Amino acid sequence: MTEKISFFMKKYQDRIEELLLDVFPSELSDDPTVKAAMYSLLAGGKRIRPVLMYMVAEMLKLDLEDVDDFAAAMEMVHTYSLIHDDLPCMDDDCLRRGKPTCHIAHGEAFALLAGDALLNRAFERVLLAVTKNPKTASAASYFAGNTGILGMIGGQSIDLASEGKKIETGLLCELHEKKTGALINASCLIPYFIYAADKGEDKKLYDLIHRFSAGTGLGFQIKDDLLDVQADEQVLGKSTGKDARDNKSTFVTVFGEKSAQQMLDDTYADVYAALDELSALGFDVTALRQFSDVLQNRVQ
Amino acid sequence: MTEKISFFMKKYQDRIEELLLDVFPSELSDDPTVKAAMYSLLAGGKRIRPVLMYMVAEMLKLDLEDVDDFAAAMEMVHTYSLIHDDLPCMDDDCLRRGKPTCHIAHGEAFALLAGDALLNRAFERVLLAVTKNPKTASAASYFAGNTGILGMIGGQSIDLASEGKKIETGLLCELHEKKTGALINASCLIPYFIYAADKGEDKKLYDLIHRFSAGTGLGFQIKDDLLDVQADEQVLGKSTGKDARDNKSTFVTVFGEKSAQQMLDDTYADVYAALDELSALGFDVTALRQFSDVLQNRVQ
Repeated sequence: MTEKISFFMKKYQDRIEELLLDVFPSELSDDPTVKAAMYSLLAGGKRIRPVLMYMVAEMLKLDLEDVDDFAAAMEMVHTYSLIHDDLPCMDDDCLRRGKPTCHIAHGEAFALLAGDALLNRAFERVLLAVTKNPKTASAASYFAGNTGILGMIGGQSIDLASEGKKIETGLLCELHEKKTGALINASCLIPYFIYAADKGEDKKLYDLIHRFSAGTGLGFQIKDDLLDVQADEQVLGKSTGKDARDNKSTFVTVFGEKSAQQMLDDTYADVYAALDELSALGFDVTALRQFSDVLQNRVQ
Repeated sequence: MTEKISFFMKKYQDRIEELLLDVFPSELSDDPTVKAAMYSLLAGGKRIRPVLMYMVAEMLKLDLEDVDDFAAAMEMVHTYSLIHDDLPCMDDDCLRRGKPTCHIAHGEAFALLAGDALLNRAFERVLLAVTKNPKTASAASYFAGNTGILGMIGGQSIDLASEGKKIETGLLCELHEKKTGALINASCLIPYFIYAADKGEDKKLYDLIHRFSAGTGLGFQIKDDLLDVQADEQVLGKSTGKDARDNKSTFVTVFGEKSAQQMLDDTYADVYAALDELSALGFDVTALRQFSDVLQNRVQ
């Protein structure tokens, strides 16, 4: 995805990369937990969640500064979840984004603490946003709900509980709505909540952004599952074919590659339909449409 | 401590126990991560941090409802830190409060997620408090700072980095100020921040509560280190003599048992002096004084 995506993303990627450089106080730069956290935080992630947040914020004509703290916090939560997910007691992965995982590079104990530190620091950042602007309180609550047991962690829990089992379609969808979908939903809707705190609620706008983000989250997961069987390991930066080996229930292992591809196409058709409706309301969705195209067709 | 402490603590203990019963939505009660979290949350902790918070709140004539969310969040953070600390890659403990540790009872993966879920849920609760009463925003930020890399996690990081090494006195103190002290500080000062948001800042009051809480935190750690060599394993509910075996730097292994006992007495002399000064300002410190006596002389 690198070449094509960078054209639309660069402005937002540069912004989030700069924010992430100093999420911890500089006097702690030698702390081994901070080093482990920064190793993973700056390991070249695609920054999809902050980019989505910034794009929706611009669509809503918010100042990007209004979402900076949330964008940084979101990437910190995403990174902590990857660090903990990679640990030996979870997925036991040693390669991530083409580099040794955090616990391989920094040891299990510091990887564990690094994850904890990133999650906690994310909330310090969110509370800073609320202190600066009390109108972001509902966005902050939405953030917290989506990162926790009702969102991402809840998805990880279902995932873990269903390991090695065939699970039914409804549970597979709930798993991914939470595990992957919750952070993507929050990324797209946090700008809406900040917007609504100022201009008042707008149910139609909320519904359309939610429809866009739900499709984007689902599409992201289906694509991930397809890449596990279609991608080049070198390009992907992690092991392929792992889902079938691990007896994981994915859209590919449950429905087969061809059906999963069809589901991906259908899902993106709905994503574009939501964007068309937002466009009809007068919102500029150019960037979001181009980004969706890139996500749908990514090779890593 | 059970018999004597319960007289002064019961009101607050009962209050926090009830709050902790439903920190997770009831529809998630079968989720294995929630089960693991509740297993540890309701494992019979002494609830020292919420009790301190409630006692300081009553001293400041706050409504206990004003600190409920923070009291619950504090105990959730304390519990998550124990779950993660007990994991094989950290202290590798199999006994806690006389019961199998979370990962022994629920497996490593769910123990890891249970810790994450408790930390996240604690912040959901804190953000709920801020939404209900925006004046708690500074208390919330203080909470977050003390639970993270600048507080408790920072202490755990120093602890881990200095394992098996003799560390200098300054670093030993910093370690414990952060690892144990930060949550105790926050427990005592959160009521102050809520009080100050209403009545205005009062530096003298802040300083005295801080002096009380710093001494209580330090005293708590010295006492813990003394119990590791003095206590009955059955009464303590966890293995004793572990610090020396693990080459841990503690107040006992660094200074010797006799000096550590003297430091404990000196520390508590200062705690009582701070309470005397608060009393001279017209605050009722009866409960805090009795609780300090119990903490100083506890056997577990």
